[in-house]
Amino acid sequence: MKIYDREAGPHPARIRIVLAEKGLEERVEFVSIDLIAAEQKHPGFLAMNPIGKVPVLELDDGTIITESTAITEYLDNLDGHPTLTGTTPRDKGIIHMMQRRAEMMLIDAVDDYFHYGTPGLGGALRPWRMPDWSGAKEWGQRRGAYAVANMPYFNDLLAKQPFLAGERFSMPDITLFAGLMFAEIVGLPIAPELTALHAWRGKVADRPAVKNRSGQVPRPEDLARYGDAA
Amino acid sequence: MKIYDREAGPHPARIRIVLAEKGLEERVEFVSIDLIAAEQKHPGFLAMNPIGKVPVLELDDGTIITESTAITEYLDNLDGHPTLTGTTPRDKGIIHMMQRRAEMMLIDAVDDYFHYGTPGLGGALRPWRMPDWSGAKEWGQRRGAYAVANMPYFNDLLAKQPFLAGERFSMPDITLFAGLMFAEIVGLPIAPELTALHAWRGKVADRPAVKNRSGQVPRPEDLARYGDAA
Repeated sequence: MKIYDREAGPHPARIRIVLAEKGLEERVEFVSIDLIAAEQKHPGFLAMNPIGKVPVLELDDGTIITESTAITEYLDNLDGHPTLTGTTPRDKGIIHMMQRRAEMMLIDAVDDYFHYGTPGLGGALRPWRMPDWSGAKEWGQRRGAYAVANMPYFNDLLAKQPFLAGERFSMPDITLFAGLMFAEIVGLPIAPELTALHAWRGKVADRPAVKNRSGQVPRPEDLARYGDAA
Repeated sequence: MKIYDREAGPHPARIRIVLAEKGLEERVEFVSIDLIAAEQKHPGFLAMNPIGKVPVLELDDGTIITESTAITEYLDNLDGHPTLTGTTPRDKGIIHMMQRRAEMMLIDAVDDYFHYGTPGLGGALRPWRMPDWSGAKEWGQRRGAYAVANMPYFNDLLAKQPFLAGERFSMPDITLFAGLMFAEIVGLPIAPELTALHAWRGKVADRPAVKNRSGQVPRPEDLARYGDAA
């Protein structure tokens, strides 16, 4: 398998954690996409992913799978023993519900904040960031405020149960973890009083699959390089 | 099971089609939410779904499942024979990829256009629609243009294969179908030259689960009532 991504990106981090959780890192060849040069918006890349984002998974037969949820479903089910996406109907339902909440209420909003509310990845990407629209920056800033306003929801949930989908670590925990790491790097840290969220984050950070593994999973200092071109 | 929704809404339509495809309609009690009165933004509803949107599924033990993908995963797997969400790792990956594309590239953008770029569901919802932001309407209109600009992508794909995920009808076909129905109602029809998209749409509309079944699945004329309060 090949994965087209950039090592320090938040969505690539989601899939690198999935690979580590499933013990699949050795089976993947990583192809680095130059996000700062807007390589993900070039025609060759758009043919794989019309949305123009990393990561992209390419199977050995050439099949393309994009979107973190889809790539996770593929990887988690490869060995016939899914551990991240659920086995019962109820677990699948709750895991996919929390996945969408972690995306919509947090990581997607942080993404928009970074790319529209701040200089983001810099000038080469500007043509794809509504440069003709004077309201784009305010929209991006509102998206950042929305992400911050949603952090108490996750804190309150994690004060009542160990992981987002209940008793067991699963796909949405990875999404929220990557989202909060991204948020911190771009200047939207978790408020100190959200103690359950901090405690959960520490617990996830301590998982063998999440700890830095020879650069496979980005540390905050790797992610920080992301903004260098801004 | 209970489903909180509103009969003529596009996201409720997704789940009503899933129920019909799976033969589960008789097992569900529908509870109507008054979207025009903003009942989905009231505290009791937000306790079920912090995002404040329909549909919401409540299981007999009180478990809440929100988000169309999550509800579909639950319902499709209930009988142990999923037909809409895939069985092999590859099928699950491709189905979830196309689901996200149908959402991000179409139905979500139409949703934003309707609620921000037009009067949407009217005055009661205005407090939740960024009324303090002068750029909201332009943002909504840009989202509508984005949806229209993405229609050729789906047309070109469906010129090469019968359904979004390949040879078989699955979850993302329902999402795109509901999205295009919604788009048409709000004034964003499919261009005549997108003939493969029109042909696919006719094929989906002819499925027994999609044809009007005693009001369970909305017809365009039901959806049209949606805008009455605007």
